[in-house]
Amino acid sequence: MHYTRDQINNLEKIKKINLINSCSGYKSANLIGTISKEGITNVAVFSSVTHLGSNPPTLGFILRPTTVPRDTYKNILESGVFTINHIFEDIIEDAHHTSAKYEEAISEFDITALEDEYHNDCIAPFVKGSPVQMEMKFIEEYHIKSNNVIHIISEIKNLYVKDYILNDDGFLDLAKGKVAAINGLDAYAIADGNTRFNYQRPKKLNTMK
Amino acid sequence: MHYTRDQINNLEKIKKINLINSCSGYKSANLIGTISKEGITNVAVFSSVTHLGSNPPTLGFILRPTTVPRDTYKNILESGVFTINHIFEDIIEDAHHTSAKYEEAISEFDITALEDEYHNDCIAPFVKGSPVQMEMKFIEEYHIKSNNVIHIISEIKNLYVKDYILNDDGFLDLAKGKVAAINGLDAYAIADGNTRFNYQRPKKLNTMK
Repeated sequence: MHYTRDQINNLEKIKKINLINSCSGYKSANLIGTISKEGITNVAVFSSVTHLGSNPPTLGFILRPTTVPRDTYKNILESGVFTINHIFEDIIEDAHHTSAKYEEAISEFDITALEDEYHNDCIAPFVKGSPVQMEMKFIEEYHIKSNNVIHIISEIKNLYVKDYILNDDGFLDLAKGKVAAINGLDAYAIADGNTRFNYQRPKKLNTMK
Repeated sequence: MHYTRDQINNLEKIKKINLINSCSGYKSANLIGTISKEGITNVAVFSSVTHLGSNPPTLGFILRPTTVPRDTYKNILESGVFTINHIFEDIIEDAHHTSAKYEEAISEFDITALEDEYHNDCIAPFVKGSPVQMEMKFIEEYHIKSNNVIHIISEIKNLYVKDYILNDDGFLDLAKGKVAAINGLDAYAIADGNTRFNYQRPKKLNTMK
């Protein structure tokens, strides 16, 4: 099946957003937790958290300030801090519900079964039970002009991981944590396991193919 | 298990890159195909392709110009075009080998079992058999100062998908395509299926929890 750019542009709206949201491949499934100046907590599902580098430990994510979840953006700029929590099997349905648009100033922790918890002096809420929880410090932001989205750059301040997913070499086995990956806008997949490879060195060139 | 930022900074190098590369959650598994001015094709594994928006259909990815794969960056700037191809079960091992650092000016298509193919007038190579192949147009780039990486912004010009993964509503079922997700630096996971949810509307607030 072949779609040209013109054909993509002319697709019916729901079909287009389903197609274009699933064509980038699997996406990370995270809940981002924040708190407002007034003390109202917020937690929202994001599928764009990306590794930018290990030294300093840096993650980025994309938000669209003109639509939901604008609370996340406002709270991050105000407080300078937020949390990233992996979505796992037991909380998928509640995590997905955080994408609903409420008019009222409510916390998603009050309208779902998600529970907040707090570690050390971090004022932003973590999601209880999540096998990977991170306290993030806001570093900088980039406005992506061609598409009118914001790229948030942040560093890990504290990392909390469940023992049973941590290997001796530092690898976090997400399958052991029943961590979800997002496919498109509304589908969540959980892998049973994975295949690890070695660090790749060049082949001798006379053994090509 | 709790790691503070100081503890992360002081981890042994391999342990640190394993830990920080796996803590963002599952990542997309893509091969990016390019061609040089001299006509040498290049294909390299990337795990940072992210959806930025559907209108225009925009994807971003991160590269580190000071290390491998610098050929990808040079070729994209020269030609303005590249391809994104999903990694699937049959090609995982060869796809991962494209991360090896060759000193010679060789094409990864010559040293692996990956095969190039061409669609319409796109000069960049696609990866044969991949269930999702996209011809991308380079739009703009952002230098992320705090971390010295480049964020490449691109738009979909042509999209090629296998019929058997395309649902009527535009959703691409990546599980049906045996598409891989990347966990950390070197682990590939394939999900058997997924759970889809409806578009989320607010609950009535008197039914909270």
